[in-house]
Amino acid sequence: MATKANKEALAEKPDGTRVNYTSYDVAVRAGVSQSAVSRCFKEGAYASDEMRARVMKAAAELGYTPNAIARSLITRRSDLIAVLISNLTNLYYPEVLSELSRQFSLNGMRMLLFTLPGDTEVDRVLSQIWEYQVGGVIAAAAHILPRHVEEFERRRVPLVLYNRTMKDKAVSAVVCDQVDGARTLVSRLAAAGHKRFAIIDGPAESVVAQERTRGACERIAELKLAKPVIVRGNYDYESGAVGMREIVRQMGRAPDAVICGNDVMAIGCVDAARHELGLEVPRKLSVAGFDGIEPANWMSYQLTTLRQPVQEMARAATELLTSMINNPGAGPEKRSFSAQLIEGATARLAPRSV
Amino acid sequence: MATKANKEALAEKPDGTRVNYTSYDVAVRAGVSQSAVSRCFKEGAYASDEMRARVMKAAAELGYTPNAIARSLITRRSDLIAVLISNLTNLYYPEVLSELSRQFSLNGMRMLLFTLPGDTEVDRVLSQIWEYQVGGVIAAAAHILPRHVEEFERRRVPLVLYNRTMKDKAVSAVVCDQVDGARTLVSRLAAAGHKRFAIIDGPAESVVAQERTRGACERIAELKLAKPVIVRGNYDYESGAVGMREIVRQMGRAPDAVICGNDVMAIGCVDAARHELGLEVPRKLSVAGFDGIEPANWMSYQLTTLRQPVQEMARAATELLTSMINNPGAGPEKRSFSAQLIEGATARLAPRSV
Repeated sequence: MATKANKEALAEKPDGTRVNYTSYDVAVRAGVSQSAVSRCFKEGAYASDEMRARVMKAAAELGYTPNAIARSLITRRSDLIAVLISNLTNLYYPEVLSELSRQFSLNGMRMLLFTLPGDTEVDRVLSQIWEYQVGGVIAAAAHILPRHVEEFERRRVPLVLYNRTMKDKAVSAVVCDQVDGARTLVSRLAAAGHKRFAIIDGPAESVVAQERTRGACERIAELKLAKPVIVRGNYDYESGAVGMREIVRQMGRAPDAVICGNDVMAIGCVDAARHELGLEVPRKLSVAGFDGIEPANWMSYQLTTLRQPVQEMARAATELLTSMINNPGAGPEKRSFSAQLIEGATARLAPRSV
Repeated sequence: MATKANKEALAEKPDGTRVNYTSYDVAVRAGVSQSAVSRCFKEGAYASDEMRARVMKAAAELGYTPNAIARSLITRRSDLIAVLISNLTNLYYPEVLSELSRQFSLNGMRMLLFTLPGDTEVDRVLSQIWEYQVGGVIAAAAHILPRHVEEFERRRVPLVLYNRTMKDKAVSAVVCDQVDGARTLVSRLAAAGHKRFAIIDGPAESVVAQERTRGACERIAELKLAKPVIVRGNYDYESGAVGMREIVRQMGRAPDAVICGNDVMAIGCVDAARHELGLEVPRKLSVAGFDGIEPANWMSYQLTTLRQPVQEMARAATELLTSMINNPGAGPEKRSFSAQLIEGATARLAPRSV
């Protein structure tokens, strides 16, 4: 509220700079000690109601706000959590970010956001993160390497990887079991009588993509079905459409089912099949994706997909990071979730009648 | 790089806490003054090559990083910019955020991100922002009120509104001309012979939605066409589909054209028309949206829409904020952009032949 008093208090100095009152000024105005002011602003610290009322009145009159930055210098603890994300235009990440933001808000943490357009950016972004002395980092990004994790360890900055693990390097992570999910998807499609599979793989550097493709190939081999045709995509719509055309070119005909490394590519694949190749989905071709993004649910698609429990995963990442901040000695921990099969309308249910 | 020297330097103290070296320690090790160390780490400040090499070697050996937080306390300037966004699951915002992030990165600014689930959260989030003494704020959120803007003024924290303006209160803003865009859309649809219009409006509190609807109604009236049926949506897919059914219910038949407050609702509207009401789009019904989000371009939709120049707008917001930070005395400035008509495939081009 713009009371007259704090308008005055926040008036500028003669040189035009802003006046910043400190807890000392509040203490003088309220006629209490400086440590009493601190207690009144600290959650859980004792202060009588009368004391609190006097301090809050003086603070309001001066327009005083406790300084989180100065506090972090003293306590060497920061509520500032850096979040690294590869690519916001991938429709899966906004949902993750939204959930993380909600969880941070519930836990009194603030989000310092970095997007990583390419792998060369990691070192530059990390050097910025060290400058801010963040309380911890959640990285939902490819391109984090073992040497980066070692730097986190040396600096004792807690790090949680989101939907990413590391070979030959123990690190705290929240993941979804991609291998198992991909196996489930193949079993489901094979049960509908599908024999000839194709895969539109995600980008080469994505560990998630590698795991999804590996799980699918494993299960296809176990079922003694033909080796799938695999084409490379980059997680976007266009590469799903291009991938579908390339599969038909390579096979000389349409496969029974296409497994796509994510939903956006699956949507591109369905559109190319229907609108460019004249293939009815699912009557002539089954298509499945991964993630469970919102557009997968739109009437034009109703994608058969594996939904990741984003809400649970974001909560787990926040909890894991909090526990690492509070127990600096604890070793790395991995929390793994299962994806849920969403029966959409892009995969046939029963074997095709001959 | 994990050299032996900085491994030692970053070793823990006997009590297990982390050792944090300061610029003083670096100065002692390099045999130079503390101010020389500062100059070596300050962009644009003079230091000889020999001096810089000595300081950087000592800093690397100690694992020293300049402390942005301590620096901001001394200079009272912060590279930290808070971004407020209403709702990340609205597919328009991730693109904005992605562009802002890229612009910030180019300008040495860091993004402190806050999402606002509801209007009651603004006060809580602002009190957090004051604690971090940010250099400035970009708000792409509804629910910012004149009294909030007054608090920014009192605290002298630069504020730029993104895609939002304020009545009766001058404030710096980057906007897209929504009224003009909506008028363009009506003119385009009327030229195709459409006479009976309906509008699926955005949420009541959205100024952007109000302007789009006002522009459309103005132009419809100027063309002496029947007053449009207007139903309320909330910017999501489901409300576009519900809105379409409601329009048909109210009119007892389909209109010639539906103008939707954003692309996601237009997509829901197209899907409901095609899959639930059996109305061919665009043969029996034209549908148009606003924003130009990526899914609007997918083959199943190819929406006729007004694309906002997100890249230009994000760059303008960043420039405007930077200029306000550097010139604290300057008054509010508004930068307005025009949307571009995208001729998709959901609106007929020529009058229907009878």
